[in-house]
Amino acid sequence: MKKIDLRSDTVTQPTMEMRQAMFDAMVGDDVYQEDPTVRQLEETAAAVLGKEAALLVTSGTQGNQLAVLAWCRPGEEIILEENSHIFLYEGGAVSALAGVQTRTVPGVRGAIQPEDLMKAIRDDDIHHPDTGLICMENTHNRAGGAVVPPESMKAVYEIAKECGIPVHLDGARLFNAAAASGIPVQEFTQYVDTVQVCLSKGLGAPIGSILAGPRDVIERARKWRKRLGGGMRQAGVIAAPGLIALTKMADRLAEDHKHARQLAQGLTAMGLQIDNQVETNIILINMVKSGQDREAFLRQLAEQGILAGGMGEEHVRFVTNYHITAEDVQTVLDTVQQMLKQTV
Amino acid sequence: MKKIDLRSDTVTQPTMEMRQAMFDAMVGDDVYQEDPTVRQLEETAAAVLGKEAALLVTSGTQGNQLAVLAWCRPGEEIILEENSHIFLYEGGAVSALAGVQTRTVPGVRGAIQPEDLMKAIRDDDIHHPDTGLICMENTHNRAGGAVVPPESMKAVYEIAKECGIPVHLDGARLFNAAAASGIPVQEFTQYVDTVQVCLSKGLGAPIGSILAGPRDVIERARKWRKRLGGGMRQAGVIAAPGLIALTKMADRLAEDHKHARQLAQGLTAMGLQIDNQVETNIILINMVKSGQDREAFLRQLAEQGILAGGMGEEHVRFVTNYHITAEDVQTVLDTVQQMLKQTV
Amino acid sequence: MKKIDLRSDTVTQPTMEMRQAMFDAMVGDDVYQEDPTVRQLEETAAAVLGKEAALLVTSGTQGNQLAVLAWCRPGEEIILEENSHIFLYEGGAVSALAGVQTRTVPGVRGAIQPEDLMKAIRDDDIHHPDTGLICMENTHNRAGGAVVPPESMKAVYEIAKECGIPVHLDGARLFNAAAASGIPVQEFTQYVDTVQVCLSKGLGAPIGSILAGPRDVIERARKWRKRLGGGMRQAGVIAAPGLIALTKMADRLAEDHKHARQLAQGLTAMGLQIDNQVETNIILINMVKSGQDREAFLRQLAEQGILAGGMGEEHVRFVTNYHITAEDVQTVLDTVQQMLKQTV
Amino acid sequence: MKKIDLRSDTVTQPTMEMRQAMFDAMVGDDVYQEDPTVRQLEETAAAVLGKEAALLVTSGTQGNQLAVLAWCRPGEEIILEENSHIFLYEGGAVSALAGVQTRTVPGVRGAIQPEDLMKAIRDDDIHHPDTGLICMENTHNRAGGAVVPPESMKAVYEIAKECGIPVHLDGARLFNAAAASGIPVQEFTQYVDTVQVCLSKGLGAPIGSILAGPRDVIERARKWRKRLGGGMRQAGVIAAPGLIALTKMADRLAEDHKHARQLAQGLTAMGLQIDNQVETNIILINMVKSGQDREAFLRQLAEQGILAGGMGEEHVRFVTNYHITAEDVQTVLDTVQQMLKQTV
Repeated sequence: MKKIDLRSDTVTQPTMEMRQAMFDAMVGDDVYQEDPTVRQLEETAAAVLGKEAALLVTSGTQGNQLAVLAWCRPGEEIILEENSHIFLYEGGAVSALAGVQTRTVPGVRGAIQPEDLMKAIRDDDIHHPDTGLICMENTHNRAGGAVVPPESMKAVYEIAKECGIPVHLDGARLFNAAAASGIPVQEFTQYVDTVQVCLSKGLGAPIGSILAGPRDVIERARKWRKRLGGGMRQAGVIAAPGLIALTKMADRLAEDHKHARQLAQGLTAMGLQIDNQVETNIILINMVKSGQDREAFLRQLAEQGILAGGMGEEHVRFVTNYHITAEDVQTVLDTVQQMLKQTV
Repeated sequence: MKKIDLRSDTVTQPTMEMRQAMFDAMVGDDVYQEDPTVRQLEETAAAVLGKEAALLVTSGTQGNQLAVLAWCRPGEEIILEENSHIFLYEGGAVSALAGVQTRTVPGVRGAIQPEDLMKAIRDDDIHHPDTGLICMENTHNRAGGAVVPPESMKAVYEIAKECGIPVHLDGARLFNAAAASGIPVQEFTQYVDTVQVCLSKGLGAPIGSILAGPRDVIERARKWRKRLGGGMRQAGVIAAPGLIALTKMADRLAEDHKHARQLAQGLTAMGLQIDNQVETNIILINMVKSGQDREAFLRQLAEQGILAGGMGEEHVRFVTNYHITAEDVQTVLDTVQQMLKQTV
Repeated sequence: MKKIDLRSDTVTQPTMEMRQAMFDAMVGDDVYQEDPTVRQLEETAAAVLGKEAALLVTSGTQGNQLAVLAWCRPGEEIILEENSHIFLYEGGAVSALAGVQTRTVPGVRGAIQPEDLMKAIRDDDIHHPDTGLICMENTHNRAGGAVVPPESMKAVYEIAKECGIPVHLDGARLFNAAAASGIPVQEFTQYVDTVQVCLSKGLGAPIGSILAGPRDVIERARKWRKRLGGGMRQAGVIAAPGLIALTKMADRLAEDHKHARQLAQGLTAMGLQIDNQVETNIILINMVKSGQDREAFLRQLAEQGILAGGMGEEHVRFVTNYHITAEDVQTVLDTVQQMLKQTV
Repeated sequence: MKKIDLRSDTVTQPTMEMRQAMFDAMVGDDVYQEDPTVRQLEETAAAVLGKEAALLVTSGTQGNQLAVLAWCRPGEEIILEENSHIFLYEGGAVSALAGVQTRTVPGVRGAIQPEDLMKAIRDDDIHHPDTGLICMENTHNRAGGAVVPPESMKAVYEIAKECGIPVHLDGARLFNAAAASGIPVQEFTQYVDTVQVCLSKGLGAPIGSILAGPRDVIERARKWRKRLGGGMRQAGVIAAPGLIALTKMADRLAEDHKHARQLAQGLTAMGLQIDNQVETNIILINMVKSGQDREAFLRQLAEQGILAGGMGEEHVRFVTNYHITAEDVQTVLDTVQQMLKQTV
């Protein structure tokens, strides 16, 4: 029985081409900045993202943390959407490592609203932390892979610039936003100062993310990366598949999105309640509204070789990815159909 | 013209009895724990608050920060009401000093709601910070000096205990809560592990707050106090007035509350919109709903020797205190009446 | 039996004049910067120390910590003499609060040597923390109250300036250095960017130290003071005796130094080995070289009402102070003489 | 002209076998602990090092930092040899990330001396940071790749255990110590609680180090690794070559050591002054004692395709490694001979 793993796109395994690229990679000592493959990846990434410079890091979390460390000082406050990854899923690292306080605002489909942002920015007062950074997320994971449109990002950016506050984008799945909307990546990144994108997840690289931004910020991030132990030696072996991920894999994300839509339509037709718009590769099924027992549902799926996970209090999350085929979609739908029949 | 200062009860100046106590104070080197007046204050405070041990600190902020430092480790998360003093007005210190992430929940009249609390407590997952502390505030400043009833604190405490999480109370104005409700202080403090109370503010000491709790936590806090530079030498000179504040001044808070109610009734009668219930010594006038220009209002008051401040986006805050007499209340009402006539 | 307390000058109790000054002090809310006595003290201190601005803090430790917090960022390194107070006796706070690494160099009678300093300053390399601050101490406590001469401080300062590194002076007992050397305080402070001096210790104020330096640094320190909980309300009650300490008590330090010399001469005459030059108010008796059992010696003294303490592995430390009279010196000498006779 | 790179063993490139292993690697999502190759590596490493559990990290720096984060709390002090890598070359990260103060002691050929250690351990006092960890390094890089013998480590360990302090080993080149001394790795690791070893450097893996120790400490380290962004996804692609490094490459280190000795003998014969014993793969030529201009020497070597680096103030460091053959050694000797002739 083939395992159908819908828990996340983080489970994606490298393609044959990526494996070959690792085998062939020209490498050097990247702490000395002598790894040609890393340099090529970083230059390519900067160009793709429309930024001066880029840095290879070992994970999306590391990219986000380095942005906060490079921009902020302890005693500052950062503003984030209340369900953002940096706030919920990075172990409280922004406070532990960078000493910044988190101030969250509610989002609308993952997007920070200008009026909430304006209220959250601190004025100058001895009692207040200074606002040191604003973070957006696109696509927004907890909002069900929602695409935050460039105009929404622009509104945030303009307020930030007026107040002299830098803006960072957690773009772990930014290429999904571009693929789903048909809007080029740089239309999004023009409204942030730094951006982190994952080469793993939908793009399929085994390891690695990119932090891009102004050269001086990236150089500060490079020094912090050394402190975090992210300075690697022959890092070309992960840069090589990363380069393929960055340059060749973005186009195929549309397929994941199509599969997600098909899956969502099928599930809806069976009476399950899906809470998000399924713009990209994430589906959030509200088990409470669907009248299902979440734990039983996940267990029965697992018994049929279909893996999924819970999110928040009420949802089951399905994430389509490189390994999920149209046949798999059908298998999942058939399996769920069967399960629902037995429940009744 | 006598200045009528309603900006805060923090402006309270020491009484003659307190000044005499400073003059007469027996002192010693408190870093060696040899100051008899400090020891007497700390023992008295522990007894009054129903805790094993207590520590004299230089401010409410220091007491709160020491609680967080003594309870938590970096990478943990603390849960606070979204308008709490620790979150809004301590310069982001909990993250800068203790490395903890702040997770805020909305309050109802300053009180954390059990269902919000349960959602905010983290389960065990490698992506999550562990929940390290829950903080309450009573009376709640931004909620207009609202009293959080013991039963509400109990509900929070019971959830916390079930989850093995310690609870801290920012009781900067806890004696106001006791005076307003007629409920003894220990009925409140029984539902927290540590509590900070200010000897300044309504109680009138020139400097100082108390942190009380289990002996081992207080000893850890003592060491952190040294690191923060709060270890003082002949601290008896501030403990002496603090002892008077703690033992003799709580009863007079009822007078501040009476003045606040009188002031509120008078202002309401003039058509001003007061947003809080005025249970204690704080009045929040909603200037937007009252149809007034806040800056002009404050400026005109100041021209008549009456000082007040803004709070949040829309409010003017009046805080009655030891220096505000019944005549002052009348003067303020007359002045506002005059101002409103001229506005029309 | 009068207690003769030679453990430290930190045990000094306020004079009658200081107590009267506390009684009479004009006060205000210093968080609003409205306490007239605090303002007068800070202005006077800035003038006395030859700096733009000054800040009242609750202890020498707090003044030193604020200097580090105001000058440095996490990931930087500070250079200190290996027996300095900041390194040995402040609970590791520079690393815990400011996130800086401590790099120690050996001193000659407490003075950092230029060649050691030059080796310790880091060059630009991704593996290195940047050198963020150089700290001196004068008089140097562990070096037996040694005076670091201005020319020695100048040599350090010039290297620092060439490298663009700020310099801080832990001048907890700087007025002792001035009194002992006859060199005005500003001849010392000209060679540092910020300086901390204690108003307690030899100067006799019950609580308080001063941090002085450039206005922008002092303003950053003020904000960090708030985070540490050192922002006080009616702080005039400690500023008032502090002002007397600063303006009237420096002249009397010469007397402490005379008493220390007399004590040292008497002890030496009895065959005890004194390891320091006794330039100021500190005497370090080497008990190992003196052939005495340290613990027994201290205990026997205590039985006669004479208190002293150990320092390091081998020394007993005597510190003369405001309460020690010429008669006390004689009593101590007689007592020790008696003890040594019995030992033989 | 073949480049002969003696700057470090960090420049080592992966072998063909390692490249093939990357190509073939079975992988999974290691954040879910489902990567079979990572698990195999971690289990193998724990067994090899004689510890309960092990964790794959991206660099030696990350392994060392995780040890400090897992063992210590802010406000503690760690004891290190004054030329150790953690102190000199990790960007001050122990203080920036873990908030611990560094206390250095001089080493004898890299080994901490028991009497120095005993003096450096703090007793219980409110002024003191508690000693939280003792770190050793073996082989010791700055001491010229010196092997610290097990009996020396034992002496440190016994003192630590008596005081209840954990011990960490920076064993970046521990396999060199084993190869040079003929003593099994576990004879060294038995005297530490946690150990970090590099799979790169002499062992040739492109990326990666191992932290090993008690299971609960490793689990805390795992959570901190996530915060640092070291939690990777299909990390099997680096674990696969790491496994080869760990199991097949240790034996070949003897060859590097032989080459280093040959190189050292040749250089000594030409009159160059070598300051270390050349027990392993590092040679430190003292250019001042050798009467040579360091910068000119390095530049002339580079012109002949031979790369080396400076260390400290006076030394040139040569590090033999996997790519350096017996012929290369001869080429270097011939080249230096030629250079020295021209100098005269």
